[in-house]
Amino acid sequence: MAKEKKLVEAITSMEEDFAKWYTDVVKKAELMEYSSAKGFMIFKPLGFAIWENIKDRLDKRFKKTGVENVYMPLIIPESLLQKEKDHVEGFAPEVAWITHGGEEPLEERFCVRPTSETVFCDFYSNDIQSYRDLPRLYNQWCSVVRWEKTTRPFLRSREFLWQEGHTAHATAKEAIERTELMHEVYAEFLEEDLAIPVIRGMKTEKERFAGAESTYTIEALMKDGKALQSATSHYFGDGFARAYDIKYTDKNNELQYVHQTSWGLSTRTIGALIMVHGDDSGLVLPPKIAPTQVMVIPIRNDDNILEAAKALADSMGETCRVKTDLSDKRPGWKYSEQEMRGIPLRAELGPRDLEEGKCVLVRRDTREKIPVSLDEAPAKAAELLEDIQKSLYDKAKAYLDAHISEAKDYDTFCANVEEKPGFIKAMWCGNQECEDKIKEDTTATSRCIPFGQEPISDVCVCCGKPAKKLVYWGKAY
Amino acid sequence: MAKEKKLVEAITSMEEDFAKWYTDVVKKAELMEYSSAKGFMIFKPLGFAIWENIKDRLDKRFKKTGVENVYMPLIIPESLLQKEKDHVEGFAPEVAWITHGGEEPLEERFCVRPTSETVFCDFYSNDIQSYRDLPRLYNQWCSVVRWEKTTRPFLRSREFLWQEGHTAHATAKEAIERTELMHEVYAEFLEEDLAIPVIRGMKTEKERFAGAESTYTIEALMKDGKALQSATSHYFGDGFARAYDIKYTDKNNELQYVHQTSWGLSTRTIGALIMVHGDDSGLVLPPKIAPTQVMVIPIRNDDNILEAAKALADSMGETCRVKTDLSDKRPGWKYSEQEMRGIPLRAELGPRDLEEGKCVLVRRDTREKIPVSLDEAPAKAAELLEDIQKSLYDKAKAYLDAHISEAKDYDTFCANVEEKPGFIKAMWCGNQECEDKIKEDTTATSRCIPFGQEPISDVCVCCGKPAKKLVYWGKAY
Repeated sequence: MAKEKKLVEAITSMEEDFAKWYTDVVKKAELMEYSSAKGFMIFKPLGFAIWENIKDRLDKRFKKTGVENVYMPLIIPESLLQKEKDHVEGFAPEVAWITHGGEEPLEERFCVRPTSETVFCDFYSNDIQSYRDLPRLYNQWCSVVRWEKTTRPFLRSREFLWQEGHTAHATAKEAIERTELMHEVYAEFLEEDLAIPVIRGMKTEKERFAGAESTYTIEALMKDGKALQSATSHYFGDGFARAYDIKYTDKNNELQYVHQTSWGLSTRTIGALIMVHGDDSGLVLPPKIAPTQVMVIPIRNDDNILEAAKALADSMGETCRVKTDLSDKRPGWKYSEQEMRGIPLRAELGPRDLEEGKCVLVRRDTREKIPVSLDEAPAKAAELLEDIQKSLYDKAKAYLDAHISEAKDYDTFCANVEEKPGFIKAMWCGNQECEDKIKEDTTATSRCIPFGQEPISDVCVCCGKPAKKLVYWGKAY
Repeated sequence: MAKEKKLVEAITSMEEDFAKWYTDVVKKAELMEYSSAKGFMIFKPLGFAIWENIKDRLDKRFKKTGVENVYMPLIIPESLLQKEKDHVEGFAPEVAWITHGGEEPLEERFCVRPTSETVFCDFYSNDIQSYRDLPRLYNQWCSVVRWEKTTRPFLRSREFLWQEGHTAHATAKEAIERTELMHEVYAEFLEEDLAIPVIRGMKTEKERFAGAESTYTIEALMKDGKALQSATSHYFGDGFARAYDIKYTDKNNELQYVHQTSWGLSTRTIGALIMVHGDDSGLVLPPKIAPTQVMVIPIRNDDNILEAAKALADSMGETCRVKTDLSDKRPGWKYSEQEMRGIPLRAELGPRDLEEGKCVLVRRDTREKIPVSLDEAPAKAAELLEDIQKSLYDKAKAYLDAHISEAKDYDTFCANVEEKPGFIKAMWCGNQECEDKIKEDTTATSRCIPFGQEPISDVCVCCGKPAKKLVYWGKAY
């Protein structure tokens, strides 16, 4: 059995070293690989297939709300990037600059897009003329480049894949409604499709997107107790419209500035999937997003077993995404691989099973073994997949709920950061000085100001002055 | 009627100025827009939706042959690009160079990928160890940048969208088979899904991809008689494997170089769709690729008509992709828009139609009007869409067949280039001097060497020396 165990043994346990466990899973599940360009990653077939499923499912949710996809240029002229002051200050330090086209130096530098507000604004300034042109509900799926100093697979890299929606509206009210709608679309997508429960709320001014009037965020909790900002939606007011001169003629024939939003979700979410559901045997994928939902594993390579395995896979193919492992590896090795790659169910089929006209379904999440007749296997598998999706969510929700603590004074707050991994609910005066001090003292940051404000005290946990808001705090990726 | 006609009148006719007609269609059908970065284009919703459909349908064809999608970095270190001599010579003059990350100059320049052979090779050199790892059948959907001097929407721009497949195989035979398979996948996709008949063949050495041992091409014919290279598949032998040191251990435990292929299809194909099927009223989209297949147009904005239009659209929604034009524009204007945007069918519904329980289906391609009862409309629409798909192909095939001429001597050849737009079949000695002379004298280039060689004479049409191959020649985009 030495060979079969190798794959599992090669992973560091979560308990021992969470960061190492994470990179081990990324590598052993064959999600991603480092490239020769420092900080740039390669999405291998499984990593990319997960992203394709995220894309397909989220895109459908977008389109239901009237969003249309477009594609904007990869590069941004420096002069265009400069127009919105806060925005350029936020991004200029980390963009990649193109200075030559072929052998010739360019008259003006271009940066590779770090985000595309400026490009959409430039387009909208010509494209939008009248109230009849509004709203514009555009989105693009693309990659962006940010020249980060330190990188980690999926969580932070110099290039990442994402979608960025950019909308323009006649009124502030409509733009705010759209920001809130997309915030809710993200939250439902994470909870329903990725089985990841989230905390919804707004960012403090310090944590806002460069140039935004408000930023809505969904925050998820990883198994090491650290938060991961999973998708953000920004309301810009008419700030960009004024900087880029995006005006429309209203029904009274008067010129008005548009009001705008943007919202994005990236391949970081794959990092969240790993750290919310994974375990010491590797990846655990929620069935809705798993590229392969069931792996049929023949326990012996006899012709009749292989044939029966193929027939079983065919019949299951009607209710789920199924593959058959026909390699000549030993069964234990095949199980380890299926577990490492997070495939929600496997169907084991051996000589005795075949004699009895059955197979054994094994859940990835609970390892429960469910013997079932070959006839009933497709229906049973579909039922189990639904149950796995639900239990993964329930388990993650229970973990999240168990990792929210409260702090009414600063000592408790600092102790909780060390001793109670997770979110800390605490009151805040609204001043950035306290956010800065908390970060410096504890490395925890304000994660969000939740919508359902239920004050737990009257004073700021940090300075003791009158409190304005309840805030979720925590260490974060 | 002045207002309704405006849209149509605004287009230059094909006859008058084909190039102007083309850019008019691109603009008026709202496919694409120029951006502030010279030579970079913006895909508007209709243009991008067509690309999404191309992507979905072609991707399914790829996956059926075992191809898996991945994603490789956008940028390439200069040293990596340099490794294959022919390849770098072909691409270095037209790449965009990144020299700064944030404020700091980089130690080594990076180019934005013009194509990703070098990146895949670098990855494969670590990823492939044993014959068990082969074949590797990877593909990516992405954008690439080539710093072109002159640009035209869809046909040539500094950034374009495409897919690039890169495979590695144990033997030359397998690699050649894969090249031919993908060549055939492209040809079938164009003919069956885009209704574009193609000429299949191989490129001459002069026209080959930089670094390839052979290049397979499919060539389509535009309505101005010019050819458009629509997708190419390259066989590399072990040239890249030697340059990038991609070796595997074979079954006898000996080190061998892999044999490789690459193959790509780009947003150029949208240009082909426009120029193969379009007419003086605008775009004509084959139903299989049309984002909207049927536009329901209420002829009056009365409540009962609008309601009936919505009900009709709902019932049609089961058999096809349908939208309803509920705007307050006049019917003629709506027709013009539907025609301009190439929607294959419209369903007109007026007060009298409603009284009689019918609607009128109008084909975009033939303008034939087909009255049909509301009950039968969904089935009839589905049937007509199939027929439109077929007739568009038949019409394009008839055009192609009627625009292939033969030339056995140079005078005839030169006359044909001027007087008989389309492909010219002529014999060739195999020397590049003759290709160069033909191009200089006539601007026609060798398009491909067809597989079914049926010699039409014994001597080269240019130099009169013994002929080796029958070649298709023509002016091309």
